[in-house]
Amino acid sequence: MNYPGGIKKRREISSISYKNRGMNLEADLNDTNAYYREEKIAYIYKKPTPIKLVKVDYKKNLIKEGYFEKPSTTDYNGIYKGKYIDFEAKETTSKTSFPLNNIHPHQIEHIRNITIEGGISFLIVRFTTLDQTFYLSGKDFLEFIDTNTRKSIPLSYFNDKGYIIKNTLRPRLDYLKIVRQILEVE
Amino acid sequence: MNYPGGIKKRREISSISYKNRGMNLEADLNDTNAYYREEKIAYIYKKPTPIKLVKVDYKKNLIKEGYFEKPSTTDYNGIYKGKYIDFEAKETTSKTSFPLNNIHPHQIEHIRNITIEGGISFLIVRFTTLDQTFYLSGKDFLEFIDTNTRKSIPLSYFNDKGYIIKNTLRPRLDYLKIVRQILEVE
Repeated sequence: MNYPGGIKKRREISSISYKNRGMNLEADLNDTNAYYREEKIAYIYKKPTPIKLVKVDYKKNLIKEGYFEKPSTTDYNGIYKGKYIDFEAKETTSKTSFPLNNIHPHQIEHIRNITIEGGISFLIVRFTTLDQTFYLSGKDFLEFIDTNTRKSIPLSYFNDKGYIIKNTLRPRLDYLKIVRQILEVE
Repeated sequence: MNYPGGIKKRREISSISYKNRGMNLEADLNDTNAYYREEKIAYIYKKPTPIKLVKVDYKKNLIKEGYFEKPSTTDYNGIYKGKYIDFEAKETTSKTSFPLNNIHPHQIEHIRNITIEGGISFLIVRFTTLDQTFYLSGKDFLEFIDTNTRKSIPLSYFNDKGYIIKNTLRPRLDYLKIVRQILEVE
């Protein structure tokens, strides 16, 4: 089928912005965390990726050889109203389930520790193809892990147990709105 | 003066171990945090130093050029009994005061934010030459900064407002003992 040029162009733009949304969960979260800090709502940061240093010229402050290491904790942590916040953020292109090989065993252990210690622990999972982003509590994540042998968490589990985090303008991904709801219920 | 060989040797060992103590606040804290984790007391980690990546071979997972960046937050954070813990650890060879150029303006701002947000924020400062390690709360640190134009915090301020953290065997530097004392008083 042939469409008029104008519509075709619009489709292209839509496709580009769609792709950007999908690839930019980290950018959305960095933007959101910056907003929380500016508004003095919360202080949550992405941890730097741990790097194994092999060759360093300390005089020049220069790393000549280094390797990325697997993180043993989650990527984001910080404070909200005095409470400890801790989460991992992941994207998947799957339309039906979230593959568990996205989360390392060390990270699962970490999520368990933080949950037991009373922290506010969760995952943020974005199904990029569906453009849906979910908040899943550490407790519900662990319950799935502990009672299933499946290698992925089906979308239906996110719909049942999780919460949708809407894309908004400012902040882009207001996940603390969900945290507030959960804290009020408790 | 000449000493018998045995005594001389002992003096040397003492000198080495003295030096090691002085240089190893970070090692003591890593060891202590590992102990807290093993005993399921708290989950506190040192954040990796942020690195600006310039040349990366992602196929080989190899960093060919990178530069250390100044951290905008403190080095350590985590959770203890659900509460957010956040601290910076520094050593000084001075016998009389702690030079404030050890703490970047961004870090001071961070300590202020965490303190206001209700986190357990503090400094651990070791006077290596005196072999004394102090806990100074974020609140008392900020009070000094806000009411002084001095470029260093005198030892007497640590003695007045801080708490000595003793060197022990296991864990090596039980700073949560001080946190517990302070939480009980509040």
